[in-house]
Amino acid sequence: MKRRISYHLANMAQALSLGLLLAFLAIQSCIAIELTDHIDLWPMPTSVSHGTQRLYVSKDITMSMEGSTYPDGKGILKDAFQRVVDLIKLNHVVDGANPSSFVLTGVNVVVHSPEDELKFGVDESYNLSVPTAGYPLRVQIEAQTVFGALHALQTFSQLCYFDFTSKLIELISAPWRISDTPRFPYRGLLIDTSRHYLPVTNVLHWHIVDAQSFPIEIPSYPKLWNGSYSFSERYTTSDAVDIVRYAENRGVNVMAEIDVPGHALSWGVGYPSLWPSDSCKEPLDVSNNFTFGVIDGILSDFSKVFKFKFVHLGGDEVNTSCWTATPHIKKWLDDNQMNVSDAYRYFVLRSQKLAISHGYDVINWLGEDVAPKVVAAGLRCIVSNQDKWYLDHLDATWEGFYTNEPLKGIDDPEQQSLVIGGEVCMWGEQIDASDIEQTIWPRAAAAAERLWTPIEKIAEDPRLVTSRLARFRCLLNQRGVAAAPVAGYGRTAPYEPGPCVRQ
Amino acid sequence: MKRRISYHLANMAQALSLGLLLAFLAIQSCIAIELTDHIDLWPMPTSVSHGTQRLYVSKDITMSMEGSTYPDGKGILKDAFQRVVDLIKLNHVVDGANPSSFVLTGVNVVVHSPEDELKFGVDESYNLSVPTAGYPLRVQIEAQTVFGALHALQTFSQLCYFDFTSKLIELISAPWRISDTPRFPYRGLLIDTSRHYLPVTNVLHWHIVDAQSFPIEIPSYPKLWNGSYSFSERYTTSDAVDIVRYAENRGVNVMAEIDVPGHALSWGVGYPSLWPSDSCKEPLDVSNNFTFGVIDGILSDFSKVFKFKFVHLGGDEVNTSCWTATPHIKKWLDDNQMNVSDAYRYFVLRSQKLAISHGYDVINWLGEDVAPKVVAAGLRCIVSNQDKWYLDHLDATWEGFYTNEPLKGIDDPEQQSLVIGGEVCMWGEQIDASDIEQTIWPRAAAAAERLWTPIEKIAEDPRLVTSRLARFRCLLNQRGVAAAPVAGYGRTAPYEPGPCVRQ
Repeated sequence: MKRRISYHLANMAQALSLGLLLAFLAIQSCIAIELTDHIDLWPMPTSVSHGTQRLYVSKDITMSMEGSTYPDGKGILKDAFQRVVDLIKLNHVVDGANPSSFVLTGVNVVVHSPEDELKFGVDESYNLSVPTAGYPLRVQIEAQTVFGALHALQTFSQLCYFDFTSKLIELISAPWRISDTPRFPYRGLLIDTSRHYLPVTNVLHWHIVDAQSFPIEIPSYPKLWNGSYSFSERYTTSDAVDIVRYAENRGVNVMAEIDVPGHALSWGVGYPSLWPSDSCKEPLDVSNNFTFGVIDGILSDFSKVFKFKFVHLGGDEVNTSCWTATPHIKKWLDDNQMNVSDAYRYFVLRSQKLAISHGYDVINWLGEDVAPKVVAAGLRCIVSNQDKWYLDHLDATWEGFYTNEPLKGIDDPEQQSLVIGGEVCMWGEQIDASDIEQTIWPRAAAAAERLWTPIEKIAEDPRLVTSRLARFRCLLNQRGVAAAPVAGYGRTAPYEPGPCVRQ
Repeated sequence: MKRRISYHLANMAQALSLGLLLAFLAIQSCIAIELTDHIDLWPMPTSVSHGTQRLYVSKDITMSMEGSTYPDGKGILKDAFQRVVDLIKLNHVVDGANPSSFVLTGVNVVVHSPEDELKFGVDESYNLSVPTAGYPLRVQIEAQTVFGALHALQTFSQLCYFDFTSKLIELISAPWRISDTPRFPYRGLLIDTSRHYLPVTNVLHWHIVDAQSFPIEIPSYPKLWNGSYSFSERYTTSDAVDIVRYAENRGVNVMAEIDVPGHALSWGVGYPSLWPSDSCKEPLDVSNNFTFGVIDGILSDFSKVFKFKFVHLGGDEVNTSCWTATPHIKKWLDDNQMNVSDAYRYFVLRSQKLAISHGYDVINWLGEDVAPKVVAAGLRCIVSNQDKWYLDHLDATWEGFYTNEPLKGIDDPEQQSLVIGGEVCMWGEQIDASDIEQTIWPRAAAAAERLWTPIEKIAEDPRLVTSRLARFRCLLNQRGVAAAPVAGYGRTAPYEPGPCVRQ
């Protein structure tokens, strides 16, 4: 009997150990998956590894630039560091007792290039390392350009949090080694200031004018902004310069758009001869050289303010009936042996030439699902499909934003390289300063990860990133950005009382 | 013939002049009414007169205090002036050419009292005068206390605007003589941080805890905030001190509320003995002295932070069934010969005594439409009726907020003086940081005028103030406050493209 029991016990022990082992493996894999989701970084960097050590962040943390070639003449890096320190300390009074060890007291930033002009295609990569050894204990950032360093500072800020027990800023799971670079160089957000004026504090990437209003100052044609909604709903040239500088200091390019020849009714308020006639006001009069003089003036003025290499000339949704219905334009079409299609092509090409003459590369709107055809024809493409990436469509869910793949249907590597990125669009017909933030965020953040993070690290099932996105949304709220709840459609109100991350 | 034509012409001339005279009178009255609505001040001051002169506001405008008794030791006035100057210059780059005359270069502030403690009933009156003669040309402010001066600076800021032609800050319709004082001393806004945590940047007047969560640190009973939603959704004592100071520097008192004995489920997360039982968790256990020890500790800690003379103890919506259903409490009721009504009264009175022992006057919630009865009984009253002044009711229109009269049904002047003011309530079940601003504004502003402006100047028909409120709403947007469109119900999105004032 004894032998059988022993055997039995031995078997059980073995079975148990095996079971334990299996359980352990299962738990470890679960933890591995969960930990990936518990890396509270958004968007997810190219490569991340970390440990288990808790560190404290000195509230007097300073920045150094030992080993940098970059002189920071404009103070871009210094100002960014100050903003990040303020962000880290925002919301709670940091008044705990200073610990004696494991305190990060500095951030050393090594920037290899002295270049400080923001431009398309600038190197935005960085390495970020948070060590647990060394004295003084310093965060190490290394980047090719200052703009990569700015991204590194942002990522570092997401590792820090206020601890309610110690009343200090802490950083857990050190040491961290992060290496990061964006997947696509063009990662855009369109803001529309024509359908509703947005006070300057809201403008990022600028669909400036449209049919409904023309709010910006054009010194070459000073009556154009008579098309603004009111005397107060305007942006001066100096405002625009300010906006561009503000964005540049944060590593954001500002691209201007003037949509021609459609969507331009507001231009004629100051210059009625731009309209085909007083009763037929769109598109812009193709037969009138003055029209192209105005476009040239706008682009000339833009070139002094908007230094990004691209300008957007629109070209969409053109209803040419006012051309054929207006006698002098009909005559011009006939004289030039053009149908409306020819005239449209002529308009677009002539406008493009003007933009090119002012140093710009040109972007135009095309239709739905055309990316594969565009790159097959050897042209570059920025993906911005209406069904998934239009923020004004409140029924477009964050999951839809997250899963929208710019390279869908494009398999040839050379053609893939022609897709320079993508853009989410905040059309302004039904939003204004009262609700723009919650309409943009957090759905734009979902697209941001699609555009930044390597595709191998993008979850195929968006449900795997729900809680990380929810935590990022709560971080945005803490930073004063009114990002909406993650649950449900765009810009929903929180359904019921509860923790921020469960909204 | 000639005579008849002359007579005829003479008659016509007379008729014409009479007609012109009548037309002139009619137009003048219209202008008078319109001008009142074109005084873009919100809320409307007690008395306003103005002229027709345009002035410029120097972007280097400075403040002086000649004639003041007030020393501004805490810098309240100096900081407020800086904030107001920043507000005036916000949004646009002021780079026009300086004019040679009619430039306001200074603001002289005379404060008569050296008092700088904000307290209930402090004198908030002021005189503001913007002259058109004198060198240097200076705005004159005169107030009893610094808090009146703060109001004067706000009003002054509303007179200034950026002019797109001169690219300067201008002020039209000078000279201005404004005399102002609030109608009611208590003009409140309730903010609820229990149903959803609000990052510190959002808290003004504080319904801190409730059934759903307990987010604030109570040093006397440190496990109370175990009832917070999460480790990050908390306010430390230092945060609360910071909030009170921030508000005080802006002339805003912070009143704390702990709602007892109902609405207190979250208290038991850290101290389960506060619950009647594990299966019956509300109201707080009336039979347990520990309950009152905790209330005493909270109030003691509050008294070090919240210096406003009032504290709010709630007392509403108490379902006493857990008292009768829980044996040890049932026994206590029987032993003390109390029914649940007696026990409720006992709870409220005992809690009130504790608050009074810490130097507070006490506020409790009562029911609907009871103001006349309350003041008839000789008690003070703050009006906050659910049907008109609850901001979480999105169907409560701004017109309803504007027309809600605190003294309705109270005719005796002595009783009227017992109504110390009113309060709008932003209950938090379905709002959070993503949408609180647009839910509060502009409807709270409508109530603000009801509480500030003399009743003779309050329009009986709210439609008379629609455009002034719309302009104030647009001013809020320009200042970075996400106030919702005026049209429609609470927190609507703008319906269609158009100017800000028509939303």
